[in-house]
Amino acid sequence: MKIAPRTNYREDVVGRANVEDTPELLAYYDELDTLKTGALWTVANKIEPWFPQSSSVPVLWRYNDLRDHVLRSIDLVSPEKAGRRVVYLNNPGRQDVAAAVGWLYSGLQAMNPGELASAHNHSASALRFIMEGSGAYTIVNGHKMTLGANDFVLTPNGTWHEHGVSEDGSSCIWQDGLDIPLVNALEANFYTVHPDLNQAVTYAVDDSTATWAGTGLMPGDDKWEHGYSPLLKYEWAPTYEALCRYARVTDGSPFDGVLMNYINPKTGGPVMQTIGASMQMLRPGEHTKAHRHTGSFIYQVAKGKGFSIINGQRFDWQERDIFCVPSWMFHEHANASQSEDACLFCFNDLPVMKSLGLYREEALKENDGHQPV
Amino acid sequence: MKIAPRTNYREDVVGRANVEDTPELLAYYDELDTLKTGALWTVANKIEPWFPQSSSVPVLWRYNDLRDHVLRSIDLVSPEKAGRRVVYLNNPGRQDVAAAVGWLYSGLQAMNPGELASAHNHSASALRFIMEGSGAYTIVNGHKMTLGANDFVLTPNGTWHEHGVSEDGSSCIWQDGLDIPLVNALEANFYTVHPDLNQAVTYAVDDSTATWAGTGLMPGDDKWEHGYSPLLKYEWAPTYEALCRYARVTDGSPFDGVLMNYINPKTGGPVMQTIGASMQMLRPGEHTKAHRHTGSFIYQVAKGKGFSIINGQRFDWQERDIFCVPSWMFHEHANASQSEDACLFCFNDLPVMKSLGLYREEALKENDGHQPV
Amino acid sequence: MKIAPRTNYREDVVGRANVEDTPELLAYYDELDTLKTGALWTVANKIEPWFPQSSSVPVLWRYNDLRDHVLRSIDLVSPEKAGRRVVYLNNPGRQDVAAAVGWLYSGLQAMNPGELASAHNHSASALRFIMEGSGAYTIVNGHKMTLGANDFVLTPNGTWHEHGVSEDGSSCIWQDGLDIPLVNALEANFYTVHPDLNQAVTYAVDDSTATWAGTGLMPGDDKWEHGYSPLLKYEWAPTYEALCRYARVTDGSPFDGVLMNYINPKTGGPVMQTIGASMQMLRPGEHTKAHRHTGSFIYQVAKGKGFSIINGQRFDWQERDIFCVPSWMFHEHANASQSEDACLFCFNDLPVMKSLGLYREEALKENDGHQPV
Amino acid sequence: MKIAPRTNYREDVVGRANVEDTPELLAYYDELDTLKTGALWTVANKIEPWFPQSSSVPVLWRYNDLRDHVLRSIDLVSPEKAGRRVVYLNNPGRQDVAAAVGWLYSGLQAMNPGELASAHNHSASALRFIMEGSGAYTIVNGHKMTLGANDFVLTPNGTWHEHGVSEDGSSCIWQDGLDIPLVNALEANFYTVHPDLNQAVTYAVDDSTATWAGTGLMPGDDKWEHGYSPLLKYEWAPTYEALCRYARVTDGSPFDGVLMNYINPKTGGPVMQTIGASMQMLRPGEHTKAHRHTGSFIYQVAKGKGFSIINGQRFDWQERDIFCVPSWMFHEHANASQSEDACLFCFNDLPVMKSLGLYREEALKENDGHQPV
Repeated sequence: MKIAPRTNYREDVVGRANVEDTPELLAYYDELDTLKTGALWTVANKIEPWFPQSSSVPVLWRYNDLRDHVLRSIDLVSPEKAGRRVVYLNNPGRQDVAAAVGWLYSGLQAMNPGELASAHNHSASALRFIMEGSGAYTIVNGHKMTLGANDFVLTPNGTWHEHGVSEDGSSCIWQDGLDIPLVNALEANFYTVHPDLNQAVTYAVDDSTATWAGTGLMPGDDKWEHGYSPLLKYEWAPTYEALCRYARVTDGSPFDGVLMNYINPKTGGPVMQTIGASMQMLRPGEHTKAHRHTGSFIYQVAKGKGFSIINGQRFDWQERDIFCVPSWMFHEHANASQSEDACLFCFNDLPVMKSLGLYREEALKENDGHQPV
Repeated sequence: MKIAPRTNYREDVVGRANVEDTPELLAYYDELDTLKTGALWTVANKIEPWFPQSSSVPVLWRYNDLRDHVLRSIDLVSPEKAGRRVVYLNNPGRQDVAAAVGWLYSGLQAMNPGELASAHNHSASALRFIMEGSGAYTIVNGHKMTLGANDFVLTPNGTWHEHGVSEDGSSCIWQDGLDIPLVNALEANFYTVHPDLNQAVTYAVDDSTATWAGTGLMPGDDKWEHGYSPLLKYEWAPTYEALCRYARVTDGSPFDGVLMNYINPKTGGPVMQTIGASMQMLRPGEHTKAHRHTGSFIYQVAKGKGFSIINGQRFDWQERDIFCVPSWMFHEHANASQSEDACLFCFNDLPVMKSLGLYREEALKENDGHQPV
Repeated sequence: MKIAPRTNYREDVVGRANVEDTPELLAYYDELDTLKTGALWTVANKIEPWFPQSSSVPVLWRYNDLRDHVLRSIDLVSPEKAGRRVVYLNNPGRQDVAAAVGWLYSGLQAMNPGELASAHNHSASALRFIMEGSGAYTIVNGHKMTLGANDFVLTPNGTWHEHGVSEDGSSCIWQDGLDIPLVNALEANFYTVHPDLNQAVTYAVDDSTATWAGTGLMPGDDKWEHGYSPLLKYEWAPTYEALCRYARVTDGSPFDGVLMNYINPKTGGPVMQTIGASMQMLRPGEHTKAHRHTGSFIYQVAKGKGFSIINGQRFDWQERDIFCVPSWMFHEHANASQSEDACLFCFNDLPVMKSLGLYREEALKENDGHQPV
Repeated sequence: MKIAPRTNYREDVVGRANVEDTPELLAYYDELDTLKTGALWTVANKIEPWFPQSSSVPVLWRYNDLRDHVLRSIDLVSPEKAGRRVVYLNNPGRQDVAAAVGWLYSGLQAMNPGELASAHNHSASALRFIMEGSGAYTIVNGHKMTLGANDFVLTPNGTWHEHGVSEDGSSCIWQDGLDIPLVNALEANFYTVHPDLNQAVTYAVDDSTATWAGTGLMPGDDKWEHGYSPLLKYEWAPTYEALCRYARVTDGSPFDGVLMNYINPKTGGPVMQTIGASMQMLRPGEHTKAHRHTGSFIYQVAKGKGFSIINGQRFDWQERDIFCVPSWMFHEHANASQSEDACLFCFNDLPVMKSLGLYREEALKENDGHQPV
């Protein structure tokens, strides 16, 4: 896509470019074009914005709207033809890269009992968050993990992985999350189909949690040297229990309530090098204050109902709904129940922001921290 | 930019999407559109490529072609109007983001004696590599650095910085390098004009090199805690001397000859969190073998003449020429002189590739490692 | 203590000192003495041994022998006079520094219901492992932790800490472990009595486990910056459960059975900078192979009965017995039961060995890895 | 050495042990003895001192006193018999471990032209600081380094190393520094004589500095993974130049003047895991203020003359004199010249203090920071 010729993005501010076109300059610009160059002052204000202005828009995807379409895909296309039956979230501002927000991809995948997708690997990092159904499992580099609702599982960059549902299970739906758009944009994505189409299970089933989910404990003979977590599955029951225990001893964050990050137990850092994840609890009646920060965020409602105000727009959500918060947009969350807690699963590109030195955060100062809607 | 409707990117390969359109599916796709969603199998093969296919093209910018245009900018626009007089390198594949290659911006800036640009800061990281002229200087957070040809200076993300040329100097030209396109793409760029338009020099001139350029030594009372190097200027004379000394004791790399990375002396890591840099020497007559890797690279010829073969295309270069190597393209370098060494300055996004776990490298196996041209 | 004059430690081996005394040399040695110097060759073979020869001896302390004496201390001395009623383990080879083995101190402390020791802090790092009784608690920097049998609690270097037993508890006995001898030897120990003699509890009781013992989770608003773990208590129930789960999916170590290290969840590293700890399970009938390594180790039998062979000597143990393994002595462990597992708690100075680059390990090659007794 | 029986180290301070002997207690203590145990309150105040009380004493070793004795060793013993001809510094408080101060060993070694000691390795880390003579060299793991006065060279733990003087050199004297006492105390020392008695030189002479002494540069193809610096020699000329440059832009430290640490260029950290080193300049007439800190320090006067006040005692020094500062003793330094700078080389165990979390520092507050003498 070529820049519209002679759009100069002028700003009448000291320290900013403000050059008016002249015949001489227009001729000069034409010459520069022929040399595969341009005059910085014609684009400077465009490429040096005062603050991030995300091309993504806030979106809420209601599960009630999507569920039937997702299940219908099972009938519409075969796994052999489609690879995977997935309805992906297509942010109106990011359709060119098929992103749900920023550089994050997300989709809802459905699978019938007895089905097993073929194994592949790619440079993109991936995660799944189970929404419904029984018998789902994922195999990552020979480690098989059984999955239930609200379980969170990693399929990190470069690992062989495949998803299936056991014969005695039910139709399953889960949310996929990947950094495909980012890795494509960074021109670093590789894709390989497993030579045998499926991999062998070479470890005891659920060995990853049996080995790495101990509280404050790590196997003595560990030799893990990957950049991602050896704990590949984070189960819902202990996660919710941890949140409840933490909620009893903390005031929580004014912006996020009681939030815990899923971590790599080897390092205390994020679960993968490009994608972080968290589970947060909004206590009964809690309405957090607004802040904004760099980074792109995708939420799924794991429990309860409420609403979020994102960039001044209110989005009401209930269990299984998904919504996104683009970079540098103010957002605040509210639990609509006075008696039950609400829980939000979130994945994001915070590890990218932080390892590149680009994280910045700001609280809303006006109106006691609440956005007018 | 919207995906052309119903472009299905089909591939007839096991494990890839290969779904033909049917009236029922087309209707289904239309319904998904209204829900801000899509069917993954219609885009899967597009967003999961087999290997990186850069949108950048290899380009050589000849200094002989550019120099007059750069100097002419001094007469054409005033610093007050233009901010900076810069001719930027506009890769034909990356004009939408004004990048020289990948997500890296580069431009040639000119300044007359006695001029001083206004101070600003931004989240993008920047560097300069001095091409010609005397009296140039840069001020970074109160540290003033005097600059000569082939000196390399950092203006890291978030620092106040400004460039000038002293009254008794001559017209100067240097190459700017920034990650503006990347930081914009990551929606994390902030820009601020210094409230006083210019900052005070609050340290002894060239204190950064006096403090941090000691060989194997570090100040005892150091409290540096930034993500970027406290050594902000890397002078040409000691750099070239270090290369010559290293050349005497190493065989060098088959792909790069005698290459040294500029480092942050606090950590041994890259100079900034998003941009790495190196200087490499091709010994008289040396012709390296071809390899390819992820990451985008911009070279300036600091000394000598020769050629590079990039993606099968030969580019002849001499001192001050600039060329780029896009991600995952094979490249090899040759020194055209049998008696003099040649030196290539390079900056790149390797720190991004490495901190995100996306670096991959491959040697050309055929033809004794040399590309047919 | 002065070296016995003119002991020359001669060895008739090439590369070792082997100088016989002569009248001229003896006179020379006397002159060197007056200058606060000596001739290296008179001590070289002594100070450069071929391999570590620990001054500690292996010892087993039977709880049956010690328990009455420990309880008797409660009647013999008052907390006011004694500070703490502790019977410390006094290795015959380390009585000069009151160490149980190497540079590690250990003792058994008794306390009656309603008692509370005064608060202090010191540069030494400390831990407790609860042996019997109910109602014990520890307060560390305002965090109060309630304790039961086989719970493991940290009181890291520099923290205010105090131990007590609640009014409604019973007489308690626990094992203390500290690096007091090491920190004294390094001439870096400071000791302070709390100005108020006791500290306030400023957090919710057991907030440390509520916050940090989540499996694969970390609080989102964490600002911890100490060198030691924010998780200060490791409870027995989840520890044993983790061992049992891990045992189901691992072959274990040939030398240690199923061993897990207690870790700092912020880093995946040891719980404190100078002391590491582990819990290991010997499966029914398991008899490990012998190896030796640098570092000093103190074990307490948390569950079951069996024996260990240390440096060729067999030590039979049962629940609550304590034994030590000095540096570089071969050791192997055996569970005497064919039906029940046995568990060994251990603390050691491995973090010192590893951070100073001094860890070395060797398997016994002879006799299928078992020491003759 | 056994603790004198029934020495109770009583202190009449709240929070400290203060138990008087009774016949019942004495009988109890005897019983504890038989169980290889003791009563903590009889030793608590001894093993938990209020602050570090070093067993080392401050000592100044005058080179004028030592030089003849060192050279005489060449005639008195052969290299074959003695291994090395070394006069070691024997701190009156540390003769039992042959330490110069704390857990650091130091000695002056002499060697004649054409001599070459046999190669060995040990777990202790070592360094040399050249005092006089020409032609000295050291070989470390195949890397040969040529040495001149005030050059500083590493022979890290576990490396094969040997020292020699070339045929065309002169008699050489250098200072050795090692952590032998520490590694012995930690029961982790291993010693091996090289199977061929001498090792081959397998790299270009002085390749270490040619590769690693570049200012702000690191070889691009580096694979170094040891815990110690790949830069094994730090030459005097660039060290002094770096100090002079730094002195022009810094106020220096009130306690140390212009001090720079020798660093590992791979990490910015200390040169070895157990021993740090620095060179500091006292400007003409400079008299620093007193502070104290944990850690043991050995200084050699590399240039100039002056005095230091250590623990209230004045020590006058000139070039080549050596002195030590024990842990937690106040010390201040003064340059006696009003026109020439003075330089102090120092090595110490700060890396141990810091990696174990034991570093503490305090300025003298009284008397404007100067000790009364």
